[in-house]
Amino acid sequence: MTPETVMITDVGPRDGLQNQPKILTLEQRLALVQAIADAGVPQIEVGSFVSPKAVPAMAGTDQVFASLEKAQFATPTIALIPNMKGYELARAAGAKTVTMVLYASDGMAQKNASMTMAQADEITLEILRLAKQDGIEVIATIAVAFACPFDGPTAASTVEKGVARFMKAGADQVVLADTIGAADPQQVRALTATLVEQHGAGRLGCHFHDTRAMGLANVYAAVESGIRRFDSSIAGLGGCPFAPGASGNVATDDIAMMLQQMGFATGIDLNKLMQASDLAQALTGTAPGGRSKPWLQGYLTKQAS
Amino acid sequence: MTPETVMITDVGPRDGLQNQPKILTLEQRLALVQAIADAGVPQIEVGSFVSPKAVPAMAGTDQVFASLEKAQFATPTIALIPNMKGYELARAAGAKTVTMVLYASDGMAQKNASMTMAQADEITLEILRLAKQDGIEVIATIAVAFACPFDGPTAASTVEKGVARFMKAGADQVVLADTIGAADPQQVRALTATLVEQHGAGRLGCHFHDTRAMGLANVYAAVESGIRRFDSSIAGLGGCPFAPGASGNVATDDIAMMLQQMGFATGIDLNKLMQASDLAQALTGTAPGGRSKPWLQGYLTKQAS
Repeated sequence: MTPETVMITDVGPRDGLQNQPKILTLEQRLALVQAIADAGVPQIEVGSFVSPKAVPAMAGTDQVFASLEKAQFATPTIALIPNMKGYELARAAGAKTVTMVLYASDGMAQKNASMTMAQADEITLEILRLAKQDGIEVIATIAVAFACPFDGPTAASTVEKGVARFMKAGADQVVLADTIGAADPQQVRALTATLVEQHGAGRLGCHFHDTRAMGLANVYAAVESGIRRFDSSIAGLGGCPFAPGASGNVATDDIAMMLQQMGFATGIDLNKLMQASDLAQALTGTAPGGRSKPWLQGYLTKQAS
Repeated sequence: MTPETVMITDVGPRDGLQNQPKILTLEQRLALVQAIADAGVPQIEVGSFVSPKAVPAMAGTDQVFASLEKAQFATPTIALIPNMKGYELARAAGAKTVTMVLYASDGMAQKNASMTMAQADEITLEILRLAKQDGIEVIATIAVAFACPFDGPTAASTVEKGVARFMKAGADQVVLADTIGAADPQQVRALTATLVEQHGAGRLGCHFHDTRAMGLANVYAAVESGIRRFDSSIAGLGGCPFAPGASGNVATDDIAMMLQQMGFATGIDLNKLMQASDLAQALTGTAPGGRSKPWLQGYLTKQAS
């Protein structure tokens, strides 16, 4: 029996690196991307085209793309873009897939992008039309899809409407992001079940943070609903360096371990993933490493001996 | 609408304290039990009647019981017993509920109790008969119910047979213990669904360890099957102090937070639970604290201000 595949996208080189204090060099960023690819992660968000003033860690993402192209890098890559200018920069840099952030609350849209939800929607729809002509794939990521730090719990109906709009508009993927790590598995199960019923699971994905330790529980809940696409971050890179112990994205280390144990194919070599995780920890000094990493390293060492 | 109740048993003063290096005084053990009770945890495993040579941290459990009785301690307490001698000591100490450990593998039964699975079953059946006469409740906990470090994965049929035997024999509860933290949520969901179908959820419980970071995912999977009884350990007390970063029982901090967010009533006051968690960390020096604790503390502080 062929195992079912789950598609993991490592967002560490973007979501992770921009949410920790150390600014990596181009060479360091490329080494991290390469290590993640070497581990077999099938898709990597390698950077964003945002204002280098606002996000210094992401300055030079065009050079990341140029270097990867020069090296004939084979793993599909993604660039995050905040707006039309970002889209143009990404296209110029040769990006084949872009992630555009939408908002499920006006509070977050204002705070993060000085727009309303509706304005962010409009810009993304415009980018989508352009991208279709340009042959570029678009991932529409809905931020604060479960709760917003400014507006409180997110109504499921708000997310349902957003997903329906971008599915209809032809987004290649629509991703529900639990931006502040506030979702619980019951909420995830309910919302994803509804969405899978409405649209099928093919183009739906989830992006969880482990802030409240429910990251893997939420992944499992989404898997139960049929979701087969997840974002995660190597070594749990990200989070807020100013809140001790607070954690960021679900670690690729943990999600790959759990999904493989559950019998899914991820394409990931756990031994090489540990090397990428070690590198992420060494380069940043703050990445916590997957929560299962102490166990996983011991297990892999024992397997090898 | 009255929220549904989930019964949490804190096993920290037993399973936690005996799996960390520091031996607490009687006063310290009592202070920890009192702090957990003050937080509203409805049931506490306060100690075990095992050989003080084998488990020095549990010497003097009779004095724990005597002191609690003298203080008219109101929260139901449990004593773990390994055999008939333990049962007699627990009865003499005035225990109203005892936990007896069964095994789902011969490898673990031999290693942990120098018995076969069948011998452990027989002893427990004998204790059950006595306990019925003595008016003492018996919890039958099936160790390595998902995987054994010596014999590998545990067959569901082995656990099903064990549960059926002890349900029929009149055990007040039967608890599935993932002793080494090896279960994944899919495995948990499948096994608990079968057992709930066969016996109802009333007398079934689960005991998870967070070794592979899947603790809360496994709790959620069991909740989905209808399980409403869980063991957990204050501040994640336990684990192996000699494996850095390895974690033990699911923290009461985390399980209470998640279940309450999911709308269940646990009877637990999270503010007071944080005080008990702080005490567990201060007393042992090794308890990690719940994985959600940094977030939870921040949240509670904000709520209070």
